[in-house]
Amino acid sequence: MPAGEPLHESSEAEGEVQVWAQIKTEVKRDAESEPALASYLYSTILSHSSLERSLSFHLGNKLCSSTLLSTLLYDLFLDAFSSDSSLRAATVADLFAARERDPACVSFSHCLLNYKGFLACQAQRVAHKLWSQSRKPLALALQSRIADVFSVDIHPAARIGKGVLFDHATGKVVGETAVIGNNVSILHHVTLGGTGKVGGDRHPKIGDGVLIGAGATILGNVKIGEGAKIGAGSVVLIDVPPWTTAVGNPARLVGGKERPSKHEDVPGESMDHTSFISEWSDYII
Amino acid sequence: MPAGEPLHESSEAEGEVQVWAQIKTEVKRDAESEPALASYLYSTILSHSSLERSLSFHLGNKLCSSTLLSTLLYDLFLDAFSSDSSLRAATVADLFAARERDPACVSFSHCLLNYKGFLACQAQRVAHKLWSQSRKPLALALQSRIADVFSVDIHPAARIGKGVLFDHATGKVVGETAVIGNNVSILHHVTLGGTGKVGGDRHPKIGDGVLIGAGATILGNVKIGEGAKIGAGSVVLIDVPPWTTAVGNPARLVGGKERPSKHEDVPGESMDHTSFISEWSDYII
Amino acid sequence: MPAGEPLHESSEAEGEVQVWAQIKTEVKRDAESEPALASYLYSTILSHSSLERSLSFHLGNKLCSSTLLSTLLYDLFLDAFSSDSSLRAATVADLFAARERDPACVSFSHCLLNYKGFLACQAQRVAHKLWSQSRKPLALALQSRIADVFSVDIHPAARIGKGVLFDHATGKVVGETAVIGNNVSILHHVTLGGTGKVGGDRHPKIGDGVLIGAGATILGNVKIGEGAKIGAGSVVLIDVPPWTTAVGNPARLVGGKERPSKHEDVPGESMDHTSFISEWSDYII
Amino acid sequence: MPAGEPLHESSEAEGEVQVWAQIKTEVKRDAESEPALASYLYSTILSHSSLERSLSFHLGNKLCSSTLLSTLLYDLFLDAFSSDSSLRAATVADLFAARERDPACVSFSHCLLNYKGFLACQAQRVAHKLWSQSRKPLALALQSRIADVFSVDIHPAARIGKGVLFDHATGKVVGETAVIGNNVSILHHVTLGGTGKVGGDRHPKIGDGVLIGAGATILGNVKIGEGAKIGAGSVVLIDVPPWTTAVGNPARLVGGKERPSKHEDVPGESMDHTSFISEWSDYII
Amino acid sequence: MPAGEPLHESSEAEGEVQVWAQIKTEVKRDAESEPALASYLYSTILSHSSLERSLSFHLGNKLCSSTLLSTLLYDLFLDAFSSDSSLRAATVADLFAARERDPACVSFSHCLLNYKGFLACQAQRVAHKLWSQSRKPLALALQSRIADVFSVDIHPAARIGKGVLFDHATGKVVGETAVIGNNVSILHHVTLGGTGKVGGDRHPKIGDGVLIGAGATILGNVKIGEGAKIGAGSVVLIDVPPWTTAVGNPARLVGGKERPSKHEDVPGESMDHTSFISEWSDYII
Amino acid sequence: MPAGEPLHESSEAEGEVQVWAQIKTEVKRDAESEPALASYLYSTILSHSSLERSLSFHLGNKLCSSTLLSTLLYDLFLDAFSSDSSLRAATVADLFAARERDPACVSFSHCLLNYKGFLACQAQRVAHKLWSQSRKPLALALQSRIADVFSVDIHPAARIGKGVLFDHATGKVVGETAVIGNNVSILHHVTLGGTGKVGGDRHPKIGDGVLIGAGATILGNVKIGEGAKIGAGSVVLIDVPPWTTAVGNPARLVGGKERPSKHEDVPGESMDHTSFISEWSDYII
Repeated sequence: MPAGEPLHESSEAEGEVQVWAQIKTEVKRDAESEPALASYLYSTILSHSSLERSLSFHLGNKLCSSTLLSTLLYDLFLDAFSSDSSLRAATVADLFAARERDPACVSFSHCLLNYKGFLACQAQRVAHKLWSQSRKPLALALQSRIADVFSVDIHPAARIGKGVLFDHATGKVVGETAVIGNNVSILHHVTLGGTGKVGGDRHPKIGDGVLIGAGATILGNVKIGEGAKIGAGSVVLIDVPPWTTAVGNPARLVGGKERPSKHEDVPGESMDHTSFISEWSDYII
Repeated sequence: MPAGEPLHESSEAEGEVQVWAQIKTEVKRDAESEPALASYLYSTILSHSSLERSLSFHLGNKLCSSTLLSTLLYDLFLDAFSSDSSLRAATVADLFAARERDPACVSFSHCLLNYKGFLACQAQRVAHKLWSQSRKPLALALQSRIADVFSVDIHPAARIGKGVLFDHATGKVVGETAVIGNNVSILHHVTLGGTGKVGGDRHPKIGDGVLIGAGATILGNVKIGEGAKIGAGSVVLIDVPPWTTAVGNPARLVGGKERPSKHEDVPGESMDHTSFISEWSDYII
Repeated sequence: MPAGEPLHESSEAEGEVQVWAQIKTEVKRDAESEPALASYLYSTILSHSSLERSLSFHLGNKLCSSTLLSTLLYDLFLDAFSSDSSLRAATVADLFAARERDPACVSFSHCLLNYKGFLACQAQRVAHKLWSQSRKPLALALQSRIADVFSVDIHPAARIGKGVLFDHATGKVVGETAVIGNNVSILHHVTLGGTGKVGGDRHPKIGDGVLIGAGATILGNVKIGEGAKIGAGSVVLIDVPPWTTAVGNPARLVGGKERPSKHEDVPGESMDHTSFISEWSDYII
Repeated sequence: MPAGEPLHESSEAEGEVQVWAQIKTEVKRDAESEPALASYLYSTILSHSSLERSLSFHLGNKLCSSTLLSTLLYDLFLDAFSSDSSLRAATVADLFAARERDPACVSFSHCLLNYKGFLACQAQRVAHKLWSQSRKPLALALQSRIADVFSVDIHPAARIGKGVLFDHATGKVVGETAVIGNNVSILHHVTLGGTGKVGGDRHPKIGDGVLIGAGATILGNVKIGEGAKIGAGSVVLIDVPPWTTAVGNPARLVGGKERPSKHEDVPGESMDHTSFISEWSDYII
Repeated sequence: MPAGEPLHESSEAEGEVQVWAQIKTEVKRDAESEPALASYLYSTILSHSSLERSLSFHLGNKLCSSTLLSTLLYDLFLDAFSSDSSLRAATVADLFAARERDPACVSFSHCLLNYKGFLACQAQRVAHKLWSQSRKPLALALQSRIADVFSVDIHPAARIGKGVLFDHATGKVVGETAVIGNNVSILHHVTLGGTGKVGGDRHPKIGDGVLIGAGATILGNVKIGEGAKIGAGSVVLIDVPPWTTAVGNPARLVGGKERPSKHEDVPGESMDHTSFISEWSDYII
Repeated sequence: MPAGEPLHESSEAEGEVQVWAQIKTEVKRDAESEPALASYLYSTILSHSSLERSLSFHLGNKLCSSTLLSTLLYDLFLDAFSSDSSLRAATVADLFAARERDPACVSFSHCLLNYKGFLACQAQRVAHKLWSQSRKPLALALQSRIADVFSVDIHPAARIGKGVLFDHATGKVVGETAVIGNNVSILHHVTLGGTGKVGGDRHPKIGDGVLIGAGATILGNVKIGEGAKIGAGSVVLIDVPPWTTAVGNPARLVGGKERPSKHEDVPGESMDHTSFISEWSDYII
């Protein structure tokens, strides 16, 4: 089947259309059953003709301030989402990630409307696009608004894959040269930070399918291997091998440094935070 | 004395009236001494005829956005607080908790006006009521606004007792099936989180009188026994027995797993964060 | 040289003028290259005749709410910054701190416009001045707005030196009797907290030149000696000697309690977060 | 029929219910056909449980300012409309007046949502009630907001009957001691003004069923008799007899001072502005 | 010349481009000389890539309310102006009309930014387009906002030509079936009103090149002939022949009904309000 | 007494202080009796240390928009009022004018808070000052905001004396080269307009002590002599001699052109609108 890429684009576009239709169905039902919320649901979702318009409107109204007007931001987001199908595909993948991995997520619209991690991530991708176009002051202004409004502080130069879930998200900090792979799940209060005042490549690289628990701190240009799992509250300053679990402060590999236990599921997707407990030798309450 | 419950209700109502009178007295004094603040104090407190109207106004103005108007939220809060005396009793108990346990809390009005943990908790209780009435989309929209404005992310299904203190509160995350007992004190950055992508009962149960220090992470359907104490920064994934202290990452029981030290005061009320230090064997700076 | 202080004032004033000129130059360039941001840059910076007017305007618009109007806050900030040269000198020193220590900080204006830690710190100093003038309700109202908007919760009574960098800053909590020295750098999620419900002097004292990593929790009236370094995620409840490094939960001194390793650089300025790793005996991934 | 008054009240309440039901039906249809307007229609009408709540919300949001918050005004209006059935009856009568007399009025909801004369009149009646309760500063503040927002300046002491139509309404000025009867229709730019700087009863008294054309100016304590008609642009300073027509500047009676023509219809209801032309002797284009 | 229409369109588009370039030049000069206004000038004009985007932004921000958001209105205006070149051509013609006929108009940008008559007219044309597309509730909501904000109340069904000047504009009222030709100039407080409560074609028809003075009232389905002039304060209820002047209340033809004086200039363009005075027989101060 | 001017300044300053003290007394009483209004009264008046700060705040909040921020306008007004004692003296004189001439004006604060004519006039004087300093674009932007918010459209170049009363004020239009003397009273809907599209000196000159009734239209560079009176609805295109009365459309002199009646009081102060009626020969209702 030679025409893979066009087909892919096509199926991405189809996915977008299907998710949007599903969102509209969900929200129509909610608007009917809850008149007090109907105005909000119409203005943010039902009055729009596409997912990108709805998302641009929602982000524009969330992130605006008295000195950065909603109309300006709306324009900026709409321009980015309309012209770049990869941004839209990432949005759809993130919606699926939340729906599939978070049992508290009751619908696509629940995520689109309410998840600050989701919204911060979509806005950061636009900031990243601006950064790549050398529109740095604007990208940094967006970062600042996202940090104020959502308490999520991601440098616009950071690269974020598709299908990511930033659950709860409050307090997340991601530095300039960080990279986050596809299908990664990161809980709140997680830091992907630098190590000093020297510039250059100085932030973590998070492989595909990684799961990082709440409050974990990962510092420096370290590599968290594909499918690795970082326990909640861990402090990690050295590379973590693929498919292993690092826990504690300072972090250690479950199973030991020499022969760490390896898991087979993709933790970024399975969201298994705690099955390593029995192996955590000194977890002795 | 057979007519206990009515008497109780009566005394609760009296407590409400007395606290409200005290708040008005405090704020009148402040408005006189500080004209720059008088407008704010009149609009949020002195122009209102009851605590529930003042609180509804204050929450409505704090949580509103360009797409969720203050009048709508005010209506919603006022309706809930007016019709449900248990909500009002919880508010009064929380005001006393802040006043008695936090030495930085200089007055009831200080808490009512300024404590984001207090305000987030009152708003969550209304969201919980809506959730219980199957008005889930509205409850989730409230959760989202509370998370944006106060950086406090509590699922509306979570059950919260009376007389709780959420001190500082920034970054608190509480999951869907979590339960928090009466007279609990929880510092900021605390997570009562789940353990994976499976639904069902998956979040911590916090007993009465528990104290949880800043940055503690408690994951899974674990039971923190009555009167237990969780040290700052601890990571807890297993039950903690009543009246014991768990500290560290991974958390251990002070005194050891077999014969943990037991304290006699109620830590959620005494707010003693650090007296266990001498017993913490490896705390060796 | 007997006339030191006036000269000092004079050179401080000169520094202020030079930084302001530099900021205007930076922002003019940005406004020309990015018309979408020009309105924001003119309203917050280019339309103002001095750094203190620009900063007062920016803080007034960031911190205002529907019940605390921007004009009132602007007036309050402008009055404080205009009448107190030490506030202005601290602002300038903080701008230099961000510029020199944070490799992600691309310009003075980047910090002035976008750094929530910087903005929260400037606003807190004004709140501190009000607190010192016994205008406590107003100081506490400012604290509340700073906590809501920036997720930075610093008691107005806390004393903060010059040349500080509050990097990222989300989730920072600093208690009433805390003291932070000059040239200190503190990352996000750091708590300088109290130890119970008794009032009095109960919060940490941070010496000059200290560096505190992300997520560190320091509780009680403990002394972090000059030039000390506190690792990310550490939990510190006892004094840390000068020029040493404490890491872990519970925190231990790198090099051991008896003969801790001593460094010679000023960590608050060098921002070296991780060079102690090789000495951290049980960091064993 | 002895029980007239209670029956009347009952039928008034029924009228209110029927109009409200009709309005909801109209607006539901519009919300379905026009998604772009649905948010507005839900927030102002469909999310409310009664006409008085919808009207209070709409007026609160129209008349609020940065120093007079929507929640305060909403409360004020709702309190007045809820507690005073005569206010609600007048609202219903005015809705019918617009619907029956103005061919451009396509529905009750069209008037409720869009007619500034209607909205100004409802708000003035609340201001009048406050004035009667000696809450004069609040009544005058409302007058000021109505004058700013709708360009309709009616003193709160003025008495206005039921079933009035203030068509277009821009520029209407009505003085302190003016009285407007029932079933009166008044076009825009009409002045019912005083005659000097002496207080006391100094403004016009407009009888039932009067029609006053656009731009007419009536000055002093003059009596416009029942069923009279005042032509557009007329300047009237003397009493006008019932069922006659005054036109011109200075105004003269059509048919002559001695034997003025008398009409039989009620001009405030028939809205016949121009049928007198043929009798206007010097109208000679 | 066979290719007239395409050429015309082309030249219209060229005119648009030239006016927009001229506006940008004017405003850049103003922004440089007046930093206090630069933010406003950048947000409304200089940050936009075309006249239609600037105008849509400006109207969206002028006409928005707490229940009709600026982003919604911006979208609506931008959609209309982008898709309909005749709307854009009318805008350009109106800009030229103001610039050429009003000596107080110092530049195109002066009109675009500040003339409420110009802005109301552009917004009405969009409302008219919506009305023609049977989006009547939305058209009427726009009419209401225009009436509130600009005190200009024009029914969306009214038809308005190109090159019109609504000078000052406050208090203008134009009814449903009114028609206004090309190159008409109308001062403030002018009414083109109906004559009763019967529907149908009941409002004035204003021919090309007509000038209507301040405060004139024209009622009924009367025809004001091409090039006619209506004096300030006139009340007109009968047809006025082309190229004649009607003045007074009731209005008479200058020169007499039988042989009215005729002028040769186009009064809507020459703006000659008063040259008829010497002929106004009884104007006898 | 040789030192007249300084004394005058001194007494002007004293007058200002006394009026301000009186206003504070009035408003304190109102705030105590009406808690619902207290927030508004504190924010606009009681929190300020001087009349000019209060007025600047009030105008800044009234005239601001989403693109012209209140802080910017507040700064602009405060700078003008603080630096120019003649502006402040005019404000005080206007407050006395309203208090003495308008029987509906119950207090100085009533005027300061609520009279749109008073507020528009104060703002125009600042716009005039900017115009005189060649800051024309800013002056015209202010004119536009005043016209939108108050429906009062006064060109910033127009010169306005002291002690003027613009009663009700809606719809007032005053052209570029108009001059209004001292102690003038002008009702609403009054036009001081131009006569065509030629520039230069083309608007009315209104002498001291003149009274102009509601809806009067005065066009061209005509001179309304000192102490003259213009009846409501009059259309005046020729000079009116001092101390005479002109009425009607077209206007005639009461008493006849040759020997017009002369009055002795100052009509701008006595506000006698109607005593000429008996002399108005054809006023024949």
